[in-house]
Amino acid sequence: MENFIFQNPTKLVFGKGQIARLSELIPAGVHLMITYGGGSVTKNGVYEQVQDALKGRQYVEFWGIEPNPHVETLRKAIELGKEKNIDFLLAVGGGSVLDGTKLVAAGICSDTDAWDIVLSGYAQKQIPFASVMTVPATGSEMNGGAVITRRETDEKYAFGGDYPQFSILDPEVTYSLSKHQIACGLVDAYTHVLEQYLTTPGQSRIMDRWAEGILLSVKEISLKIIENQHNYDLMADYMLAATLALNDFIRMGITQDWTTHMIGHELTALHGLTHGHTLAIVMPGTMRVLKEQKKAKLLQYGERIFNITEGSENERIEKAIDATETFFRSLGLTTRLSENGIGDETIETIAKRFNDRGVAFGENQNVTGDVAREILVSRK
Amino acid sequence: MENFIFQNPTKLVFGKGQIARLSELIPAGVHLMITYGGGSVTKNGVYEQVQDALKGRQYVEFWGIEPNPHVETLRKAIELGKEKNIDFLLAVGGGSVLDGTKLVAAGICSDTDAWDIVLSGYAQKQIPFASVMTVPATGSEMNGGAVITRRETDEKYAFGGDYPQFSILDPEVTYSLSKHQIACGLVDAYTHVLEQYLTTPGQSRIMDRWAEGILLSVKEISLKIIENQHNYDLMADYMLAATLALNDFIRMGITQDWTTHMIGHELTALHGLTHGHTLAIVMPGTMRVLKEQKKAKLLQYGERIFNITEGSENERIEKAIDATETFFRSLGLTTRLSENGIGDETIETIAKRFNDRGVAFGENQNVTGDVAREILVSRK
Repeated sequence: MENFIFQNPTKLVFGKGQIARLSELIPAGVHLMITYGGGSVTKNGVYEQVQDALKGRQYVEFWGIEPNPHVETLRKAIELGKEKNIDFLLAVGGGSVLDGTKLVAAGICSDTDAWDIVLSGYAQKQIPFASVMTVPATGSEMNGGAVITRRETDEKYAFGGDYPQFSILDPEVTYSLSKHQIACGLVDAYTHVLEQYLTTPGQSRIMDRWAEGILLSVKEISLKIIENQHNYDLMADYMLAATLALNDFIRMGITQDWTTHMIGHELTALHGLTHGHTLAIVMPGTMRVLKEQKKAKLLQYGERIFNITEGSENERIEKAIDATETFFRSLGLTTRLSENGIGDETIETIAKRFNDRGVAFGENQNVTGDVAREILVSRK
Repeated sequence: MENFIFQNPTKLVFGKGQIARLSELIPAGVHLMITYGGGSVTKNGVYEQVQDALKGRQYVEFWGIEPNPHVETLRKAIELGKEKNIDFLLAVGGGSVLDGTKLVAAGICSDTDAWDIVLSGYAQKQIPFASVMTVPATGSEMNGGAVITRRETDEKYAFGGDYPQFSILDPEVTYSLSKHQIACGLVDAYTHVLEQYLTTPGQSRIMDRWAEGILLSVKEISLKIIENQHNYDLMADYMLAATLALNDFIRMGITQDWTTHMIGHELTALHGLTHGHTLAIVMPGTMRVLKEQKKAKLLQYGERIFNITEGSENERIEKAIDATETFFRSLGLTTRLSENGIGDETIETIAKRFNDRGVAFGENQNVTGDVAREILVSRK
């Protein structure tokens, strides 16, 4: 096991009716700004619950943080926040609203341009922020990361920083999500785990087991949720899975990959595909192209998640990869670039971007632009 | 899933050589007192590492916090702490040193007698404290609980409060533990999980899987550790298992039992048995006497941990209970009261204590003194 430091201070407030606790959770006397997305919260009752919980308190609202939040939009929120002396932010929405809010939290107390903060990779200072999370997917509600898009150049980058002070997760707010949102959320959670799991086995027995525990749970609940998304216990399992998939709990002392995310971000930046959907497309390619270095873990994955124990090592690995793709498709998602009108031009653009930046990803830092091309070609 | 609030702010600093970070982790300018046990740290190199890390800093030392820390000893530490205006405590030792230090942290900033703080169940205020943990067992390094003994009356009670600011866990410090300490630590971790797991299944799929992940890991490493306790990766798995077994991570939204601990505490208070050892004695009895209400979970436990799938439900449950006792015995521990010279008198004392207090334990709050008697009688 590698040395590690773990600390996750976020207060998770989970369950039915918990939005009503907002007033006790937000410190008295702060200058509060609430950030929202496009308005779905006005249709599912969440906006009303937030208003009721904060009756009698003063706050500013900022609307319109879009999916894959644009730095161009967030600069406006930063400007408003500075103008109103905001010192506490509450994001009400999905992972994109919260990710955008994390950048606003940094921008409000900085003179640096928001995109430069993103490019620096880490926000040195942020005002406190919290969330009411409405879309289980990104895990942003309990981690220090955020991903921001620059529309002007179709670029999408991640940066790190503080954790939310608290996040309220009420599974009932997920009842109104679209089937596509849920499918993408389930794939996002599942793939977050794979990024931290599909490296080499035995670095930590418990981290292996915990990752597998989330994978098995997500696999088990997925088809039931697609059938009936009004089952509280299923949606609670889904919501908790998304949080635990990316809150540092399953990456203590182990190496990580993140190749699939890096390539997926490019597909979103260039074609606007939903994040989780890009992961469903790319992940089988990452598994296949890197199967030599990931061999032992892929065998363990196949056996423990899909009960694949028959055949040669290569056959078992191929079965595990096919089972993964079949699982993603069973949620109603396409898993091939050609099914989404994406061809060689995009593949070359992504390969060139990685090669030009001189970056390489993955647990062995060997996924260059050329390897990314190979992965994408295998997903045509 | 039940509603829950989760927050665990402890910084976990894990790995080889991490004790050297002490000076950066303890805030500058604090009035520091370091608390120790009986002196084993002077033999295993930990004391020297702490001294080296804190070279040039001023601090007070308090020695002699014993296993199952006595309030009588801790009152002396509180007195010293008040006299020296201590405002930061560092516990260096096992779970008992840290548990005792948690009470000292409360006593230093209170006029209430230390035992009354314990009896109140919760420390309203504590000065900040941290730990260098040397014995993986109690999980105290990353939770808000502590268990204190009053020698005068042979009573042992738990109380809650703040979490450590940080805990340093270096698996190399466990190389010098005795085989009995390790066996008891492994059983302690394993049983902490069972207390949170053996209730009813399906309250949270992930919590079930994560609990099983620790149980499987502890089972897998145990016999290897007993053979060779100088294998870093094994000891790292063991140390992490003990922490994750009782740091709130596996009890989100679920009911809990704790019957075995309540009875075990009495055996320690009355006979001085090591805590983990008492759990090995009591747990099979809790399983057997409460097997009707725990039936579905015992079946799941048997199947997922011991691959028990053959036979009637009752046969499978009995096999799972026997497998648990066999596992504890394989670590070199006795599992019967008679093997430890404990007879009917103690059983009656414990039953009477619980009945007199009018308390009842367990996930259904139905373990009265009479049920405790039944459990103990089954362990004669």
